[in-house]
Amino acid sequence: MPTRQRIADVEITPVAFQDPPLLNAVGVHEPFAIRAIVEIRTDEGLSGLGETYGDTKHLERLRRAAELVTGTDVWDLNALAGRVRTSLQGDSGTGGHGMAGMVTDSSTADAVFSPFEVACLDIQGKATGLPVSSLLGGAVRDRIDYSAYLFYKWAGHPGAEPDTWGAALDPDGVVAQARRMIDDYGFSAIKLKGGVFEPDEEIAAIKALAEAFPGMPLRLDPNAAWTVDTSIRVGRKLDGVLEYLEDPTGGIEGMAEVARKLPMPLATNMAVVSFADLDPGIRRNAVRVVLSDHHFWGGLRRSRLLAGICETFGMSLSMHSNSHLGISLAAMTHLAAATPNLTYACDTHWPWKDQEEDVVKPGALTFSEGAVAVPTAPGLGVELDRDKLGALHEQFLRCGIRDRDDTGYMRRIDPAYELRKPRW
Amino acid sequence: MPTRQRIADVEITPVAFQDPPLLNAVGVHEPFAIRAIVEIRTDEGLSGLGETYGDTKHLERLRRAAELVTGTDVWDLNALAGRVRTSLQGDSGTGGHGMAGMVTDSSTADAVFSPFEVACLDIQGKATGLPVSSLLGGAVRDRIDYSAYLFYKWAGHPGAEPDTWGAALDPDGVVAQARRMIDDYGFSAIKLKGGVFEPDEEIAAIKALAEAFPGMPLRLDPNAAWTVDTSIRVGRKLDGVLEYLEDPTGGIEGMAEVARKLPMPLATNMAVVSFADLDPGIRRNAVRVVLSDHHFWGGLRRSRLLAGICETFGMSLSMHSNSHLGISLAAMTHLAAATPNLTYACDTHWPWKDQEEDVVKPGALTFSEGAVAVPTAPGLGVELDRDKLGALHEQFLRCGIRDRDDTGYMRRIDPAYELRKPRW
Ligand SMILES: [Mg+2]
Ligand SMILES: [Mg+2]
Repeated sequence: MPTRQRIADVEITPVAFQDPPLLNAVGVHEPFAIRAIVEIRTDEGLSGLGETYGDTKHLERLRRAAELVTGTDVWDLNALAGRVRTSLQGDSGTGGHGMAGMVTDSSTADAVFSPFEVACLDIQGKATGLPVSSLLGGAVRDRIDYSAYLFYKWAGHPGAEPDTWGAALDPDGVVAQARRMIDDYGFSAIKLKGGVFEPDEEIAAIKALAEAFPGMPLRLDPNAAWTVDTSIRVGRKLDGVLEYLEDPTGGIEGMAEVARKLPMPLATNMAVVSFADLDPGIRRNAVRVVLSDHHFWGGLRRSRLLAGICETFGMSLSMHSNSHLGISLAAMTHLAAATPNLTYACDTHWPWKDQEEDVVKPGALTFSEGAVAVPTAPGLGVELDRDKLGALHEQFLRCGIRDRDDTGYMRRIDPAYELRKPRW
Repeated sequence: MPTRQRIADVEITPVAFQDPPLLNAVGVHEPFAIRAIVEIRTDEGLSGLGETYGDTKHLERLRRAAELVTGTDVWDLNALAGRVRTSLQGDSGTGGHGMAGMVTDSSTADAVFSPFEVACLDIQGKATGLPVSSLLGGAVRDRIDYSAYLFYKWAGHPGAEPDTWGAALDPDGVVAQARRMIDDYGFSAIKLKGGVFEPDEEIAAIKALAEAFPGMPLRLDPNAAWTVDTSIRVGRKLDGVLEYLEDPTGGIEGMAEVARKLPMPLATNMAVVSFADLDPGIRRNAVRVVLSDHHFWGGLRRSRLLAGICETFGMSLSMHSNSHLGISLAAMTHLAAATPNLTYACDTHWPWKDQEEDVVKPGALTFSEGAVAVPTAPGLGVELDRDKLGALHEQFLRCGIRDRDDTGYMRRIDPAYELRKPRW
């Protein structure tokens, strides 16, 4: 098998998988989450996988990029990035990344490049027999801790049966959800997605979690639903309770103002979401923890660059997650393994997915004691299940969802719902 | 050939090669420059090369590290770095890096790690058939431009015959030196090492170069020999003449003050020399060009991190050089090839070396039109010449120089010589 391989063909397949009615600051998750699966095949017959957002505009961009990257050496990631940039010429828009308006200013070029880069690293690994973690500098840990990612939720989607998780709309519901998730997965850190109810209700939920799980690291993420003053008030009440407070308010200036007044670290995946945000974010001391995410930071090597920048400027690293499938989980796990300063447990939406629904064959990625063992097989270490890819693509076609729209879905259910930022 | 290879053995060989009497702000180059050649052999029979400083304390550190890195997978650069750090525990000293007191605060851990990392990348390349530039993300250019690195110099070392370059102690001598160097190598950028004579004499030399080589990019590097006021005065006189002014004065604060007053970019390989300097350097806007150097920035991947930081914070990149042999030239060339934002011609001391004296077999690295073609053979693309390595090691033993000491050598010649910083 020659090490050099050239991209011969790229296939982009949008898929949909079931998603519970998870509430957040902009609305509620629709019944299906959509993703795009990128499969690169080489002239030597290898193939590699990437996973990214499945929204209409992003799919268009992926397809335009796919045409241009054919012929690129899978080791020549600089050239790959150049071709992706070329494919985006004249398209300076942001958005279209499937984050429901929560991450709007990330770099389009980085988001489009990401799945191609991951797929090329998967191929590099298969061509050399090395896991992706080795290509990134070597795994410094063989298991990656993830956090229990709690959501306020309805019992089920309106008009459908309740799901097995049931409702979580108050502190008791949140604690019960945490209990099941920790029983099932063994997580040893908890994140609550906030910004849904009055801040005092969310403070009560966090305090209930602190009481129910003594010593467990806790995080609260209201997705910038609060004003600066509310952020400071809530933060002061949760001093000593939270390991970090995530995006209490919007923007670098607002975060910097809150950071000056609160003792706990502020974390972000909203104020600093691209390399262009790092200079102002660092100069203003806006955040102490960056939630990296290879899907919008430009792939695994660019995420290593982000990690190096965080280390250089004394910031910590955690990891952000959207609803995702197994290819993303594999990539996140390899990245975390090869990133020495990624010391917080990573976020994942994994428990919210129907465990039967995935595009990779089962067995490569399993949770125990809240962690995923880093795959040691070549590349990402996951294998595409073509039948399931086909089934989830059919589901995409059937479900009718083409763009993530948490706010629109909420409005269809509650026409009085208003998007307000900050809300409190 | 398995891709995985473990370090079985490390050989560290100090070597010496002839060096002309090049003048600088701290004295004059001794008759021999010293380097250490690091050769790593793996359990699978491959070997890889690194080159670094040859000073006593650095050699001791290399040898201590060499003992600990045995058994490490050559792909596991995170583990390699960890072992090097372990080998340095309790040794927090700076210096000992062979830079004659000009770069004193660089990271010892990064300087010791560098040749091991380069040798591992060389092996990774040989194990996969890929040039090091591909392992770094792919060459974005196939030829690397270097600059004509001019020095004030005596005709020869005291007591010896004049060398073929002859004296350069005034504007005419500097222009003649530039003419020969450009005739021989084809360089299309010029750097003058200053800090040797009164600033006005050096201004006159730069202006003579500007007149003799119209349109040629020019740089002046007095190695922090000037006060802030002198730097501003000189810089104003050279507005429109220099592409950048390199380390006019010492320290981040001083550079920041000069930067505020001068129109041209300030460059540095003295004020910002380690990752620890980047936060204060960037917050104070001290420099606009960082001269990277994989020998003290922690190898090629850490230098790519530095490049990413420069891009992120709107700084440009050039490349620093000490007296070096072919292994370093190969590493510098691969790094420059894989660094898209390294847009300035790189510095090299290459022309000052007796072209017969090297530890690598000739032919892999040749200059034409001021540039070196990026090797495409596996790894660094250079091959050790064991006879020459032995001869240059013999020369090291004979020459008696164990630590670079430009100031001491100058004082032996001129007992009245005083080291003063700033001098003007
Ligand atoms: Mg968040
Ligand atoms: Mg310099």
